[in-house]
Amino acid sequence: MQKGFTLWFTGLSGAGKTTVSQMVAKMIREKYNRNVEILDGDVVRTNLSKGLGFSKEDRDTNILRIAFVASLLTRNGVATITAAISPYRNIRSRAREMIGNFVEIYVDCPLEVCEKRDVKGLYARARAGEIKAFTGIDDPYEPPENPEVSIKTHEESPEECAGKVINKLIEMGYLTDNN
Amino acid sequence: MQKGFTLWFTGLSGAGKTTVSQMVAKMIREKYNRNVEILDGDVVRTNLSKGLGFSKEDRDTNILRIAFVASLLTRNGVATITAAISPYRNIRSRAREMIGNFVEIYVDCPLEVCEKRDVKGLYARARAGEIKAFTGIDDPYEPPENPEVSIKTHEESPEECAGKVINKLIEMGYLTDNN
Repeated sequence: MQKGFTLWFTGLSGAGKTTVSQMVAKMIREKYNRNVEILDGDVVRTNLSKGLGFSKEDRDTNILRIAFVASLLTRNGVATITAAISPYRNIRSRAREMIGNFVEIYVDCPLEVCEKRDVKGLYARARAGEIKAFTGIDDPYEPPENPEVSIKTHEESPEECAGKVINKLIEMGYLTDNN
Repeated sequence: MQKGFTLWFTGLSGAGKTTVSQMVAKMIREKYNRNVEILDGDVVRTNLSKGLGFSKEDRDTNILRIAFVASLLTRNGVATITAAISPYRNIRSRAREMIGNFVEIYVDCPLEVCEKRDVKGLYARARAGEIKAFTGIDDPYEPPENPEVSIKTHEESPEECAGKVINKLIEMGYLTDNN
């Protein structure tokens, strides 16, 4: 069995988690010939967390469910990617403990840039008060203190960011050229 | 990647789902050198379905969450086992559709025998009215119409039952001696 691991992307809405994680997944599939399972935040909310809202407690429950599923996949040798905002440090720590082979990727992009991109129009709605408890606006984002990888999507291209993640996976022994 | 599949055990409380599924898991691990992930009903309720009760709707939601996780594991090549009562036929059909490589095991044991065993003391509590909507007592169990395997735990030993399951997996091409 191959060595399973979870790449845990964390960062503000619009920081580039999805873009970079999809590029990383493509590289792992094509260059290392491995299956990759992306636990998309929206898909997980539909399938595991219907009925949960965005209170601190509900967000924590949602993240712990993602972590539980990621832990099952990881211990069965799957290259797993999660890309939820996961704003709270202590819940990310619990995810790290549950999963073990955990690689935290901090998608570090200033709020102003994320808000300017506003791909889904969510920041405008949050500023207008239509969405409550929106991370970065009226709910906190706690940056990782010791992430395995930090990427700055406002300074580096998606390819560069993805390359950094791949290099870290090689360095940590999760990917080898013989796979 | 090896061929993933889900062994979906269904049957009354006390029918022998856990006993037989654990024996099957042991055989797959030892004789076929494969990882096996058992999605235990209680562990799943704790990690994915906290807050859900035992109404028809909540039971269905719980089973669909198990099916979602089993589908992720299965498509990543994992030998997956679920052993929840899963009393309703239409939800098991949806699980079959979601998972694809689905092997339904009907653990067929008469209610009287299950109730006599009453390992967890649940039937006594259900008869006393302390547990409501208990499958087989005041909530229906709908037997599978075309399960891949039927086992009768009141007539066959656990080893015989497990052997039938393994033989079916070989017949269906999910296990091969060269694995």
